[in-house]
Amino acid sequence: MSITRPRGFRAVGLAAGIKSTGAKDLALVINDGPRDAAAAVFTANRVQAAPVVWSRRAVADGRSRLVVLNSGGANACTGPEGAADTRATAEHAADALDISAQDVLVCSTGLIGERLPMEPLLAGITEGLDGLAAGPEADAAAAAAIMTTDTVPKTASHTLEGGVTVGGIAKGAGMLAPQLATMLVVLTTDADVDGELAAAALREATRTTFDRVDSDACMSTNDTVILLASGASGITPSLAELTEAVRQVSADLARQLVADAEGASHDIHVIVRSASSEGAALAVAREIARSSLVKTAVFGDDPNWGRIVAAAGCVPAEIAPFDAGDLSVHVNGVEVCRGGGAHRDRSEVDMTPRETVIEVDLGAGDATGDIWTNDLTHAYVEENSAYSS
Amino acid sequence: MSITRPRGFRAVGLAAGIKSTGAKDLALVINDGPRDAAAAVFTANRVQAAPVVWSRRAVADGRSRLVVLNSGGANACTGPEGAADTRATAEHAADALDISAQDVLVCSTGLIGERLPMEPLLAGITEGLDGLAAGPEADAAAAAAIMTTDTVPKTASHTLEGGVTVGGIAKGAGMLAPQLATMLVVLTTDADVDGELAAAALREATRTTFDRVDSDACMSTNDTVILLASGASGITPSLAELTEAVRQVSADLARQLVADAEGASHDIHVIVRSASSEGAALAVAREIARSSLVKTAVFGDDPNWGRIVAAAGCVPAEIAPFDAGDLSVHVNGVEVCRGGGAHRDRSEVDMTPRETVIEVDLGAGDATGDIWTNDLTHAYVEENSAYSS
Repeated sequence: MSITRPRGFRAVGLAAGIKSTGAKDLALVINDGPRDAAAAVFTANRVQAAPVVWSRRAVADGRSRLVVLNSGGANACTGPEGAADTRATAEHAADALDISAQDVLVCSTGLIGERLPMEPLLAGITEGLDGLAAGPEADAAAAAAIMTTDTVPKTASHTLEGGVTVGGIAKGAGMLAPQLATMLVVLTTDADVDGELAAAALREATRTTFDRVDSDACMSTNDTVILLASGASGITPSLAELTEAVRQVSADLARQLVADAEGASHDIHVIVRSASSEGAALAVAREIARSSLVKTAVFGDDPNWGRIVAAAGCVPAEIAPFDAGDLSVHVNGVEVCRGGGAHRDRSEVDMTPRETVIEVDLGAGDATGDIWTNDLTHAYVEENSAYSS
Repeated sequence: MSITRPRGFRAVGLAAGIKSTGAKDLALVINDGPRDAAAAVFTANRVQAAPVVWSRRAVADGRSRLVVLNSGGANACTGPEGAADTRATAEHAADALDISAQDVLVCSTGLIGERLPMEPLLAGITEGLDGLAAGPEADAAAAAAIMTTDTVPKTASHTLEGGVTVGGIAKGAGMLAPQLATMLVVLTTDADVDGELAAAALREATRTTFDRVDSDACMSTNDTVILLASGASGITPSLAELTEAVRQVSADLARQLVADAEGASHDIHVIVRSASSEGAALAVAREIARSSLVKTAVFGDDPNWGRIVAAAGCVPAEIAPFDAGDLSVHVNGVEVCRGGGAHRDRSEVDMTPRETVIEVDLGAGDATGDIWTNDLTHAYVEENSAYSS
């Protein structure tokens, strides 16, 4: 179980006919209360899909009752018509539930630049509201309905010692990003908290989980992570406790996103240590994680430290101060570069595991930061060039 | 003819035995004067190869007599020993010519992290100094000797109406960048100018040519562009005249670098118009040019404007102010996106030409900027993963 494992939630997933394949394409998640606290974080892309614009406003008061998610269309770059479609979606669900449309959040994922088929979408909402349920089947159907190029549904949950539970579903297929692999995540909790506490916990949890997955440096127009709190446990955890529970579930889901990059042959964990600040460590880790030359080398099972230090050297000194002569690099535990030059022979590195760990020591401080990415493979090129659009 | 077309220069290219293949791997370019003005620009990577560190200091006084260039090894990340090797290279040539080692510039390209074989390198310099000559054969041999993954040597020249000539050779193979495709360029001119004027002309010319080629966002540890001026024409052009001649030759060579990306099936010219500043236009153009999703779409002959506007949206507003609703996109002349939404059908776009032109209008000002790149192909992944290192 995932999103309905916390008390106070029901969900549904169905095939509404938005996707031409007949696969599930519509999910609903309802918060039955007693509270209706909500928080969300959205893509930083300035080109924002209609559902992102809608949901950002709707969640601003810290309260939501329902999330409507569809795959089969992103409703991005669709102009005023697309905005009207999102509003109609929220209003249709709100009318049926006799609530305000402002308490309905909307998420969409799929092709950019095309209108959604509203007739099947609205009919699907009506059908779905009749089928809402708690339990493993409902959770699995909802997780399946938001998949696009994902090969497996992604679910997770975690219960704190005190009894508060957090559950979640996610979609997004790592670096396999046809049409800009949107990441959609719905998290639920039965904690008795308000929207403000939920927002604080969500921000901190995403900062060290979803924000550190950088599959191909491309930011979607639709990325959304939502946290709903029902209060049904009657327990009010501290901010630290709630953050930790949300972080656990988010980390689990983020790792599943990386692992579902079918085109990838390696997951790459870039860890930068001894940086002057966490920001400096993350900047260097991100530059390495985004380097096509590093990513193709890992695909070729080549622990090519020259490409790693050259990528690090591309970060401006004012962002990450370090001396190139102080750099050391471990690949899968073997120190192939020390003091900015060759050290142990690269033939000592075992590149056969799926996970490749690149550790860079900047010798410039005490801070650490890490980024997850994938290697750059033929399958990535194939998926992203041959994908029909 | 190229580098010895301007009066006052001789060159040579030979196989010194640095490359194990027996191919040409050493080039010398000498300035016979009467002047010995020189200027250079180098990689902005903070991890700088020994020859870059050496040449930056040696050219600081605006004077150089000789450039020694080798392929078959980058002499990067080689520590104090690598620095000593570069110094020994310069001193060996300087002793033979009875000049100061400070008047010898050194460029290297090839693998990172390995020492150069100094015995064949120094013997090759001795042999090369005896073979210096002016003429098409010497130019061709020098251009060939600096090639790594290049499939063709790159040469260009241009003569101003007043009689001043600029010539050049270059190496670098576009986005096919095993071991960080270093770009090495030597430009020569018989203009009668000092190092200061040469430096001003070179900076401005590279800013709008070599700096606008961004094949895979990876910056080499060895990039170097050198301009030598012999004064042999007896003519002193204005800064504007010299800049224009250097720019013409640089643009020609930069275009050849893009065109030699064997793994690429398309050269992509990203032009951003109506930006608030040239910097804003270039930031947006670079973000689009670096997007793996845009580059794979072009490989798939898909004029996917959604990926283009999404890439534009990743540029922070403080760097490039624009409203996402004002964006328009032409691909190969067809306006597939207007006002941030779909416009003409993408099926109207002819993607068969080698050159793909992406024009983005930001609707935010009068400035324009452009970047050249290539598509992301299977051959890129193959070259960069299978390359033995």
